[in-house]
Amino acid sequence: MLRGDITVAIRNAVMNELAEVGYGRLSIEAVARRAGVGKTAIYRRWSNKLEMVMEIISDVAERKVPLPDTGSFSGDLSLLLLIVSTALRHRMASQIIPDLMAEAARNPQIAETLQRALRTHQQAVGEKLIGQAVARGELPAGTDPEVAVDLILGPLYWRLAVARQPIEDDYLEKFTVAVTAALRAMG
Amino acid sequence: MLRGDITVAIRNAVMNELAEVGYGRLSIEAVARRAGVGKTAIYRRWSNKLEMVMEIISDVAERKVPLPDTGSFSGDLSLLLLIVSTALRHRMASQIIPDLMAEAARNPQIAETLQRALRTHQQAVGEKLIGQAVARGELPAGTDPEVAVDLILGPLYWRLAVARQPIEDDYLEKFTVAVTAALRAMG
Repeated sequence: MLRGDITVAIRNAVMNELAEVGYGRLSIEAVARRAGVGKTAIYRRWSNKLEMVMEIISDVAERKVPLPDTGSFSGDLSLLLLIVSTALRHRMASQIIPDLMAEAARNPQIAETLQRALRTHQQAVGEKLIGQAVARGELPAGTDPEVAVDLILGPLYWRLAVARQPIEDDYLEKFTVAVTAALRAMG
Repeated sequence: MLRGDITVAIRNAVMNELAEVGYGRLSIEAVARRAGVGKTAIYRRWSNKLEMVMEIISDVAERKVPLPDTGSFSGDLSLLLLIVSTALRHRMASQIIPDLMAEAARNPQIAETLQRALRTHQQAVGEKLIGQAVARGELPAGTDPEVAVDLILGPLYWRLAVARQPIEDDYLEKFTVAVTAALRAMG
């Protein structure tokens, strides 16, 4: 394998191990076996398990949020809700984040990395979505992007990743109307 | 110890072990040691670790939600936000729920119990809060209590338990205005 391919294989192995056994039970041995590499290939890149997992999680968080400008706030919001509700069914939201949250309570470094990763994502989404709507005159200039993103991501995260209740056909529609009214009232 | 005292001691020990080491690493031995009882006292009550943890979590979920009628929707909502934002700083939200969520991905029985527990809580809150507001004519009769509670609990859970960002003084105020507008628009 090429150097870059080895890194990709290790990353995928780490994500799969995190989803399956969780951080506490993840071992460098199992990651190496799963990636088809020797343990030295891992220790050449990271000095320990914590450093390895934290760097990989941070990289995932820094990937660009794919949020194109649809030309209107309602279009942007519908698209974001679709992206978020799909992402929340992914094991990153339903397994890896909860596992690291539980681990964070016992390890301040994990807490700090996880919170920074989530904040980075949230700020990028908020600035883009709300910034575009304010620029178009669709939302008041004073709209707080942080509160706005809490109002959009929070209920979906709660429903899909925590309470794990399905979203019926008309849910996203009702939700879009409600969130739009909420943001207009807040400005 | 009296029989009831033993049960209380075991419950407290289970909650503390869940918060500190998580479900995966929790052992009957450690619970017995912490509760100051013999292992037989535990096996007389539950046949295994899964059954023990699930019964204790269900009991916690069935405790009555303390949501008095303040006489107005804005009063009820402010009180609920205060209760929820306090509860979300408790280890039940920041450690035990995330740990069980991560475990739920590997164990359908944990998934089912956890989801039922959260649903029970959510329905009780929704029916009381929204029911009272509709009865007073403050919200439209068609207001969906489920979407309403997602909109109230979700952002706070996301902010306080997941992203772990502080709530500034004016946050709850902005949030109350936003959620009220959202619910009125939805009816």
